[in-house]
Amino acid sequence: MNILLTSVGRRGYLVQYFKDALKESGKVYVSNSDEHSPAFKYADEYIVSPLIYDDGYIEFLLDYCRQNKIEMLISLFDIDLYVLAQNKKKFEEIGVIVVVSDVEFIKVCNDKWLTYKYLSERRLPTPKTYLELKNAITDINEKNITFPLIVKPRWGMGSLEIYVADNEEELKVFYKKVKRNIENSYLKYESKQDITNSVIIQEKINGSEYGVDIINDLSGRYRSTVIRKKIGMRAGETDAAKILENDEILSLAKELTIYTKHIGNLDIDILNNGEKYYILEMNARFGGGYPFSHLAGVNLPLALIEWRNGKEIAETVLKAETGTVGQKDIQIIKIN
Amino acid sequence: MNILLTSVGRRGYLVQYFKDALKESGKVYVSNSDEHSPAFKYADEYIVSPLIYDDGYIEFLLDYCRQNKIEMLISLFDIDLYVLAQNKKKFEEIGVIVVVSDVEFIKVCNDKWLTYKYLSERRLPTPKTYLELKNAITDINEKNITFPLIVKPRWGMGSLEIYVADNEEELKVFYKKVKRNIENSYLKYESKQDITNSVIIQEKINGSEYGVDIINDLSGRYRSTVIRKKIGMRAGETDAAKILENDEILSLAKELTIYTKHIGNLDIDILNNGEKYYILEMNARFGGGYPFSHLAGVNLPLALIEWRNGKEIAETVLKAETGTVGQKDIQIIKIN
Repeated sequence: MNILLTSVGRRGYLVQYFKDALKESGKVYVSNSDEHSPAFKYADEYIVSPLIYDDGYIEFLLDYCRQNKIEMLISLFDIDLYVLAQNKKKFEEIGVIVVVSDVEFIKVCNDKWLTYKYLSERRLPTPKTYLELKNAITDINEKNITFPLIVKPRWGMGSLEIYVADNEEELKVFYKKVKRNIENSYLKYESKQDITNSVIIQEKINGSEYGVDIINDLSGRYRSTVIRKKIGMRAGETDAAKILENDEILSLAKELTIYTKHIGNLDIDILNNGEKYYILEMNARFGGGYPFSHLAGVNLPLALIEWRNGKEIAETVLKAETGTVGQKDIQIIKIN
Repeated sequence: MNILLTSVGRRGYLVQYFKDALKESGKVYVSNSDEHSPAFKYADEYIVSPLIYDDGYIEFLLDYCRQNKIEMLISLFDIDLYVLAQNKKKFEEIGVIVVVSDVEFIKVCNDKWLTYKYLSERRLPTPKTYLELKNAITDINEKNITFPLIVKPRWGMGSLEIYVADNEEELKVFYKKVKRNIENSYLKYESKQDITNSVIIQEKINGSEYGVDIINDLSGRYRSTVIRKKIGMRAGETDAAKILENDEILSLAKELTIYTKHIGNLDIDILNNGEKYYILEMNARFGGGYPFSHLAGVNLPLALIEWRNGKEIAETVLKAETGTVGQKDIQIIKIN
């Protein structure tokens, strides 16, 4: 079986995991609109694709899949997921299973305001979130929330344009600033949906942080949960995580999957302030924390391949060894 | 010869470079106050040291050097450099050459206000910088500078607490905020020197960015300059750089060394707005960009070892191949 990873970016490790899982039974193809993507180096074959927003993007991928007998497609980027979810059937018609959740759920994950509504409507704990400055200020004055508060893009990525407001003056200044910066950056493309409501204000939960992989199979049936505690490093320059068991997080994860019925991985961020666990964000894909799970023995690439082949997997394939500590390590590689 | 790298953090690649350069002629020892430092994994021997600010830090290192017959010590962290520069003689007395510039120059590099004064007093081009809010506002009103302006810690590290102010309201709010956040973070230790003047305001130069290694030998004599242009990647998530030649930057670098007489590497950041090249920052150590130089053929670890042995090196040892493009690549490694 040949596999295509789209929006592969710099996740060379994931290319390697899929190659290891396929062994000699197929090749790993990768694509990205950026010709300098470091993960290209790891793939059997790579191609520079059009931009995700380009009209010809899906046709391009369909052609590429046909030419290279791709049987499974996995995307690593939120905006790409949304476009692929809308076109999942077109790929199915040519024999390509796109490992992506349904388009409505992807929309929820990509939109931090919808994420808040989705979770709070289902009584799942999540930090209080506001779309309008005046509502946040009312709740501050009525002492329903307290500073510090987070101000960030509703359709945001990574740590871009995230500010911590310690008082009302800062809140107002950051709210205006984030809105202006969205309009002047590539974040404007997704934010076009509702540019006047493109900024959110959110309670800041201080405490421990967890990353969780909630793994469903290709039919959306729950299979496994892997919990990683983020280890704070001095100066914040290093990323490390430890695999552990936690019954409260596990039951939160299981409750969440009743609603999500997502396909493959759902990466969620959890915060604990010492009293309560809050779900902060959801990404319906391999997240930046997956390699820590993989290091601890989880092999989701192998599971996806087996499922795609109509086979069942041993439970151990999705089981992480508790206590494993992993650490990000940086190398510089030559690309010309 | 045995070598000790202190504050090694996550620079495993540098440990590897020194091991490669030593071959069988000695071992690479590393230290850090953080027991989770990923570079420990690469070293022949590692030790968890006291904090740099602890009274016993220097005695600890002296003991460790004696026990392990260390002949050369290289630090990778600014605050560590300052403490080591003050104690350089104590190490010399036991046969350890500390590859560090003199304490006054280290002080200049660690303090962005002194950096500005150092460069501007020598008529070297650097962005206009202010220590007092009222002076910046006067110059804005007199149209000597224009927004956007950078607000950041005078003794800062990495991208911590750096804000871009687009107008006077933001400038005032960020100035207060950075000062407050310094007092509430580990930045307060260095900032204690002058806590009321711990924030700077700086012109923002937009344009191309360059990283430059200016290499002197152990007596502070100029040897080589390596110029890297930073390649902007989509979403800013990837770091890449290209080695090139640039006569204007080269002559700036050579002029600078007349004053610095630094020892080993001086890593500087340069900005070009299309009209003029500005020196932004200086770090008198191996910087985060050195691996790009190394990838292009420069071998400063080997040069330092040869110089320490009283030998001369071929010119090619410090020569980078023009056109080389390097890219950061991330892997997750197990540390337990």
